Amino acid sequence: MSIEEKIKSVVRDIPDFPKPGILFKDITPILSDPILCGEIVDAFVSKFDGIKFDAIACVEARGFFFGTLIAQRLQIPFIPIRKVGKLPYKTVSYEYSLEYGTATVEMHEDAVKEGWNVLVHDDLLATGGTAAAAAELIKTKGTVAGFSFLVNLSFLDGEEKLKKYDAPSISLVEY
Amino acid sequence: MSIEEKIKSVVRDIPDFPKPGILFKDITPILSDPILCGEIVDAFVSKFDGIKFDAIACVEARGFFFGTLIAQRLQIPFIPIRKVGKLPYKTVSYEYSLEYGTATVEMHEDAVKEGWNVLVHDDLLATGGTAAAAAELIKTKGTVAGFSFLVNLSFLDGEEKLKKYDAPSISLVEY
Repeated sequence: MSIEEKIKSVVRDIPDFPKPGILFKDITPILSDPILCGEIVDAFVSKFDGIKFDAIACVEARGFFFGTLIAQRLQIPFIPIRKVGKLPYKTVSYEYSLEYGTATVEMHEDAVKEGWNVLVHDDLLATGGTAAAAAELIKTKGTVAGFSFLVNLSFLDGEEKLKKYDAPSISLVEY
Repeated sequence: MSIEEKIKSVVRDIPDFPKPGILFKDITPILSDPILCGEIVDAFVSKFDGIKFDAIACVEARGFFFGTLIAQRLQIPFIPIRKVGKLPYKTVSYEYSLEYGTATVEMHEDAVKEGWNVLVHDDLLATGGTAAAAAELIKTKGTVAGFSFLVNLSFLDGEEKLKKYDAPSISLVEY
């Protein structure tokens, strides 16, 4: 089985979560399988073979699952990007539009060093709003050198929103 | 330098976070140092040498940082414990008291299998309320076989609250 087939065989569809009409892709069953988790890290790393990242920035909270593992494998700093008010030190923040209303993400202001090439990671790419907001935080000091997602809901065309960062975007599974 | 000294040299004190009068221990600078992160995982694993865990249950969101790494190192399932409403599948939940009011944590009902010995992990032990709540979730099907924390604020005596689980509790750093 390919890594995509293996992941798809365990991802669970949850109807009407977090609200009616949304079919949520539950990735938590993957976390029960440490061998598959290791293979996922291998797959991420091999897809980016040849690109040197100075750090990986990961979006709270599901982005932390594989973000920490990728950071450790590549031996690069892990930068948490969190919802507003969660990071204790001085932060930079970015507000972005959601379907209804807005959301704000934050990053510690000293997390990215000048000129760093940073990989932006999250578990899932939907409309791309959160990933683009994370990218804007990175751009305050560094360069977005790539995006990685476990799952891409390609029918929502999130990659279109990320094109302007001129960085490769990879995902292990598409729906 | 010992692992405790190394960790203490980078942990950052944040006064009055998340509210006035609290001196918050900011562990995020550790995440900027992949070599130290690897040594921390080594230290956790060596402290539990000889105990066989079937899974590690980690508390959202900072518990995910080292929880995923420990799970991968031990090649055991990673169980996310999250705030209410965040987990998409059927859950068990546990409400516990805070200084003011209550909080509720949840776990997917199929995350722990019958009879599993589970390690409960979080970044920080304070009064022990959250760790005890996580332990109660584990006990719905399995056994709490240990607790691990990066930091123990020992003056808050959290270990006292965990004694009833009759499982070893380790932390790498004490204040």
